[in-house]
Amino acid sequence: MSSTFWMDRALSLARRGRGLTAPNPAVGAVLVKDGRLVGEGWHRGPGQPHAEAEALADARRRGRDPRGATLWVTLEPCCHEGGGKRTPPCTKALVEAGVAEVRAAVADPNPRVSGQGQAFLESAGIRFSWGPRAEEGRELIADFTTWIRSSRPFITLKWAQDLAGELRYPGPEGPWISGPESRVRAHRLRAEHDAVVVGAGTLRTDDPELTLRHGEPGPGGPPRRLVWAGSEPLPAGARLFTDDFRSQTWLIVRPGTPARLQAPGLVGSRFLEWDGQNWDRLGRDLLAAGFSRLLVEGGPTLVASLRAQGWWDLSAVFTAPRWVGGPGLALASPQWTSVGKDILLEGWNPEASCSPAW
Amino acid sequence: MSSTFWMDRALSLARRGRGLTAPNPAVGAVLVKDGRLVGEGWHRGPGQPHAEAEALADARRRGRDPRGATLWVTLEPCCHEGGGKRTPPCTKALVEAGVAEVRAAVADPNPRVSGQGQAFLESAGIRFSWGPRAEEGRELIADFTTWIRSSRPFITLKWAQDLAGELRYPGPEGPWISGPESRVRAHRLRAEHDAVVVGAGTLRTDDPELTLRHGEPGPGGPPRRLVWAGSEPLPAGARLFTDDFRSQTWLIVRPGTPARLQAPGLVGSRFLEWDGQNWDRLGRDLLAAGFSRLLVEGGPTLVASLRAQGWWDLSAVFTAPRWVGGPGLALASPQWTSVGKDILLEGWNPEASCSPAW
Repeated sequence: MSSTFWMDRALSLARRGRGLTAPNPAVGAVLVKDGRLVGEGWHRGPGQPHAEAEALADARRRGRDPRGATLWVTLEPCCHEGGGKRTPPCTKALVEAGVAEVRAAVADPNPRVSGQGQAFLESAGIRFSWGPRAEEGRELIADFTTWIRSSRPFITLKWAQDLAGELRYPGPEGPWISGPESRVRAHRLRAEHDAVVVGAGTLRTDDPELTLRHGEPGPGGPPRRLVWAGSEPLPAGARLFTDDFRSQTWLIVRPGTPARLQAPGLVGSRFLEWDGQNWDRLGRDLLAAGFSRLLVEGGPTLVASLRAQGWWDLSAVFTAPRWVGGPGLALASPQWTSVGKDILLEGWNPEASCSPAW
Repeated sequence: MSSTFWMDRALSLARRGRGLTAPNPAVGAVLVKDGRLVGEGWHRGPGQPHAEAEALADARRRGRDPRGATLWVTLEPCCHEGGGKRTPPCTKALVEAGVAEVRAAVADPNPRVSGQGQAFLESAGIRFSWGPRAEEGRELIADFTTWIRSSRPFITLKWAQDLAGELRYPGPEGPWISGPESRVRAHRLRAEHDAVVVGAGTLRTDDPELTLRHGEPGPGGPPRRLVWAGSEPLPAGARLFTDDFRSQTWLIVRPGTPARLQAPGLVGSRFLEWDGQNWDRLGRDLLAAGFSRLLVEGGPTLVASLRAQGWWDLSAVFTAPRWVGGPGLALASPQWTSVGKDILLEGWNPEASCSPAW
């Protein structure tokens, strides 16, 4: 069995908890002895046992002895108690169970905790090593890392553009820059976040739905909709305030404005007050309201302000093989090839006599 | 043996003639009987036998009988004589040799000839069908198609840009937008063309070399350098006019200007006169001077004028995962994924606390 097989299984288990564990990280763990599975588990949510404890309990249920087993776990086991923590340290449980070896994909991102799980286990005579799948392990807990280190939600900026970098944030009707496959993919991105965010301008211009129309929602359910509203009045008849999911629409508003926004359609919507200045406060308020992974879909004003503030983690840029400016032109038979860190697009002039489109 | 195996071999043979056959197309042919090679050949240049005749001659040399064989050929066999054509029709030779079946990747692009080879062969009782590898076959003869249908060279436009579409035509020193792998790839593109073209502005600003510094030249040797000069004086000390390859530097100039440009450094350079208006004339003159595949590397003025005229066939756009405007920003761990006709770039904010670069 290759060294990635069991870690991949642990990562799959961890993903079952994605969107359910905040403010904890999603973690998965597999116990293996003599090349066979002894027990497995994942963290299901705050107050529930950690993945390591779940795996040990699973082994007991199966009537199998974890003594001498190897633990494959997506995150360094915890070794601390107290401070609001509701579960005992996993390192202690692993030592007591007689586990012989621990393989952890990544260290705890908290600099005050990182490496201490490793040190505790090694001092107890358990063999410990890092990896494989460090990159996947780090991506899995990107929201937790951002919470721990930056006290704000993890933020993905998403947009579509043409070859010249002309943006258009997709509205419900288009005009679309990107193709149908990109739109399906964009909905899969939504499913990987717990809220889809737009600014007030996009709300007014596009009246978007921001629902999940392709793909399955994550374990935490479909993403909420979050409007970065400021203090301007909003159209109370907008879909976000009137459709079946309106109780899943949240607004960030200036203090004192909620009452003014309480049009009939906004019944059921929730409000976060923000003075437009105190980003630290906003970060903590968003986390407290359960927002840990935001997908920002526009528009340009909101994105520029988030970028200026450094409030973004991942960019997801869809580029279409065409120019929308001037007369507009779509390349025929476009082919993309990765070249180092760059991408090479080769495409034909559709009107050229040697073009496949001729 | 899959139906693509022999056609791929025919394509490989054809490529040996690339850059040598103008104004004829590069063509390759393979004769196969009972799953075994009987003979093969490719067109080596004007006045030389066609690929089909080469394959038949090769079979004779090997002492093998092509009777009953299948011919895999990258282009529909010719069936016409006269009009400056120096070789007899291949269709006749195939019938006389008793070939049983012909598979041709693509039809002759000349609308007055296309389908006639097929018709002649079928009327003689030879089974005929199109494909496979139509796309590769079409790309192989893109220069010939452009010559036949548009009476001008095949033209590739190449440039590098950032995510916002900010261009920079690479000069000899940079600043480079794209990475080292892209620059190697760009030199491979040069090897696939018979001339590298720049405008007078690029010559003055960048003083480029336009030589092949990575990869092997094509069968026709390294590309010449062609300066789209207009009537402005040029720096006689430019590398293109003074280096060891200066006899491979050509200029397109306004009528009457060559004498003025005959600075000592330009000894050995060649001139094409053009009034800036008559594009048809320029196309024919370029073809007559042996230019059949041009790679245009800038600058913006030249590219805009070619695009306005529809004088381009392929775009080759290198995009780097960064923004060069403002403070500039390179995404960390960029990943490109094809999504339908679009490309999705996912990359990290290098300053984000959850970034792999943190």
